[in-house]
Amino acid sequence: MQNKPYKISKNVETLSAYTPGEQPQGGGWVKLNTNEFPYPPSPKIRAAVLAEMGGDCASLRLYPEPLSKKVRAAAAKYYGVHEDNVIVGNGSDDILNLIMRAFGGEDLKVAAMSPSYSLYPVLAKMQGAQLEEFDFGPQCKLPLEKIAKSGANVFILTNPNAPLGAAFAEADLKYIADNFKGLFVIDEAYAPFSNYSAAKFAAGRENVLAVCTSSKGWGLAGMRVGWAVADKNIIEILDRVRDSYNVDRLAQAAAVAALEDAEYYSGLVAKVVEERGKAEEFFASLGWDFCKSSSNFIFVRPRKNGAGGRDVASELFDFLKSEKILVRYWKGDPKICDGLRITVGTKPEMQKLKESVLKWISKE
Amino acid sequence: MQNKPYKISKNVETLSAYTPGEQPQGGGWVKLNTNEFPYPPSPKIRAAVLAEMGGDCASLRLYPEPLSKKVRAAAAKYYGVHEDNVIVGNGSDDILNLIMRAFGGEDLKVAAMSPSYSLYPVLAKMQGAQLEEFDFGPQCKLPLEKIAKSGANVFILTNPNAPLGAAFAEADLKYIADNFKGLFVIDEAYAPFSNYSAAKFAAGRENVLAVCTSSKGWGLAGMRVGWAVADKNIIEILDRVRDSYNVDRLAQAAAVAALEDAEYYSGLVAKVVEERGKAEEFFASLGWDFCKSSSNFIFVRPRKNGAGGRDVASELFDFLKSEKILVRYWKGDPKICDGLRITVGTKPEMQKLKESVLKWISKE
Repeated sequence: MQNKPYKISKNVETLSAYTPGEQPQGGGWVKLNTNEFPYPPSPKIRAAVLAEMGGDCASLRLYPEPLSKKVRAAAAKYYGVHEDNVIVGNGSDDILNLIMRAFGGEDLKVAAMSPSYSLYPVLAKMQGAQLEEFDFGPQCKLPLEKIAKSGANVFILTNPNAPLGAAFAEADLKYIADNFKGLFVIDEAYAPFSNYSAAKFAAGRENVLAVCTSSKGWGLAGMRVGWAVADKNIIEILDRVRDSYNVDRLAQAAAVAALEDAEYYSGLVAKVVEERGKAEEFFASLGWDFCKSSSNFIFVRPRKNGAGGRDVASELFDFLKSEKILVRYWKGDPKICDGLRITVGTKPEMQKLKESVLKWISKE
Repeated sequence: MQNKPYKISKNVETLSAYTPGEQPQGGGWVKLNTNEFPYPPSPKIRAAVLAEMGGDCASLRLYPEPLSKKVRAAAAKYYGVHEDNVIVGNGSDDILNLIMRAFGGEDLKVAAMSPSYSLYPVLAKMQGAQLEEFDFGPQCKLPLEKIAKSGANVFILTNPNAPLGAAFAEADLKYIADNFKGLFVIDEAYAPFSNYSAAKFAAGRENVLAVCTSSKGWGLAGMRVGWAVADKNIIEILDRVRDSYNVDRLAQAAAVAALEDAEYYSGLVAKVVEERGKAEEFFASLGWDFCKSSSNFIFVRPRKNGAGGRDVASELFDFLKSEKILVRYWKGDPKICDGLRITVGTKPEMQKLKESVLKWISKE
């Protein structure tokens, strides 16, 4: 590999990029694989984008406001925190990356739960940081003492967890904030579906950062806007490594319109939660094992003819794909290769899913 | 600083963020400070954005195509290279960042000319890479032998140079590509104003990467889309560290529409070049020193009552600001604190600039 006319950074030389879920470009798919919001985003977004463009797009020739101040202000208002406690990124992945760059490094350990968002190990490795991963106890219990004593400089908790869907008690978050000696990052991409956000809690602590995204709860995965809330010292450090113009004009306009239209979203989030409940009932009726979800997806372990496991999950994944239903499956991860992560879609989408699952079960 | 409950990465602890030019949010400014295109971008962009949004913005709920394939294809067609030779970023700053992450590091030296784009030192420091900066010879001559023998793993050349505006001969680029033992990065943000792009040259070499942006020559600074052309092995390495969804849906749509409308831009670029020539004549008529520009800005060293220098440049900067004309000035950089970098604007904007300069000269 190194007979190139240049050297590759040692942290990147053997790096495997994060693999995102499939994004089919053609139509006709029931897409339940990347936890997108099943409904269109706020109708106010279109008007906001049009206003930003104007008749001749002349505004687009000018750089965006570098700090995304209006988005910071809208997020601050949404959470009831001060805008000095908010940073905005090109998706929350951008912010996760900034966290690793600012607080990770070859001499700084990063810790996370396993399974959780598979981007964390990639970002940690890119920084040359050691990554320690903790297993969950039964019923997704957090190993609180181990986390507190880990000696890591950053501990990232996905709350609710992805891919499992379970949420953690505020008492657990408080325990970690009080006892963990480092930066406690709460990745709450799925918080809109859980009735709890740690944003306000984070703003009042010296060592807690809550990261969120417009991709899941605001139906804006296509626009790449995320934000985080923390003590303003942490925000200042992240701003040092942030690209000056990381969020474009139309994305800023869309995010502000979305954050200001809480009313529109609350009804639709309730619909997702309702469909989630019905899907859980369905899986329970089949005798399938799943984590009680506080998110917009369910991690379920399918069974057929009394058996579960990797081959069964893999078979269902392939069958659903043949029915033009995409779900998420990590064949190569021994901890979760016996299950599928299924995004909660619209009522007709979930109906189609159920029918296909029943078809698969009854199939020889 | 380190009595915080967390440690800051040593490369970030003392980092000063890149300072972008001022982006006034109110109207009424003649904005000649950040080298934006003075005309609105292609009228086809508005239609492309509207088509991507659709009537209800439903497409925005879905993640964008992760590789920005259509933008890669449009850039490839524009330059006459293969799309495997193209990567797309959230502005070219994103790509410069990827370059530093993939090819910089604590054991890998980075080299650049000085003065040049002041983001390079920030990105190098963030990676803990040593930065070697070379001075220009008279008339912006490149120290070719020094570059070749630098032992750096990355050499970045801004061509045309910013903030000076000078372009370099293709023979010099060839010499560096042939003799420098590392990755030769040509940052050609301003190439659209110079009649020369190294993109095709880069695609045919094993160690050359040409980076460009839609911000300057395509009037899309507000949309954050940049691209780079190189050997496909280099593209593959950069894709490893690239965020999966780094460019949003509307930005991808806008960039494709811009790249496909070369005809619209060629006429407007010609107008910029014409105004640049007239501005150079004007500065020459005043007896002011400037670099012959191949870009959309002029670096000029003002004089008053027979004297030049830092105080004179600073005084003109302040005076222009009081006239609501913003130009760029680096007061703290001894190499360039005697000059101002002035973006070439529209004819009326340049007229206003001339009048204000004359007013300043005649003022006591």
